[in-house]
Amino acid sequence: MLKVVNLMEEVNAVEQLYVYQKIGFLNPHMLSVVRVANRTLDFHVHEESDELFYVLEGQFHLETEEGLHFVKAGEFIIVPKGTLHRPVVTDLTKFLMIELCGTLNKENSGDLYED
Amino acid sequence: MLKVVNLMEEVNAVEQLYVYQKIGFLNPHMLSVVRVANRTLDFHVHEESDELFYVLEGQFHLETEEGLHFVKAGEFIIVPKGTLHRPVVTDLTKFLMIELCGTLNKENSGDLYED
Repeated sequence: MLKVVNLMEEVNAVEQLYVYQKIGFLNPHMLSVVRVANRTLDFHVHEESDELFYVLEGQFHLETEEGLHFVKAGEFIIVPKGTLHRPVVTDLTKFLMIELCGTLNKENSGDLYED
Repeated sequence: MLKVVNLMEEVNAVEQLYVYQKIGFLNPHMLSVVRVANRTLDFHVHEESDELFYVLEGQFHLETEEGLHFVKAGEFIIVPKGTLHRPVVTDLTKFLMIELCGTLNKENSGDLYED
């Protein structure tokens, strides 16, 4: 049964900040949406998976050893596997995330990720 | 070197209809943008990869053996591998596509895909 998914409806339906809502699977990848505000995660590395951050609303900085990358609504950034990074979010920002299933955990996702 | 990619800027920068512009790689997947109008592809199957259609602007129908699925701007549909399908596009519609590298070819992408 195929499903049509509206990104803004899905992200707006999640009641809490920092909770990743799974909205689809693509081969072994998970698509999820999350709302974040006023949070800077610790620097971390995903050894097994590239990670895509797509901004649905708002803006944030993705910090790597190259510096700060500014990403706003309608834009994405892909963090290659093995790259030290952290998201720096001030204003409320709504994301679509894509990475291999099993990549996100409580240490790298902002604490409220539910398996 | 990480790159910030604006989806609408990328799809609007492609001069021709039906030309898939590669805009990123996520693990072994390719992200591409394409503009399509007045085209119905033949039914086909991707045996090795799920395929994601995300509508940036416009709307289309994804036809499967279940029937027609209407997908409009801000929505995506994932076609599981092995699923007979075809996109039916009338009005000008702008897409983000994601599938395993090597999935698209001249037979299933509308003829103008360049390797």
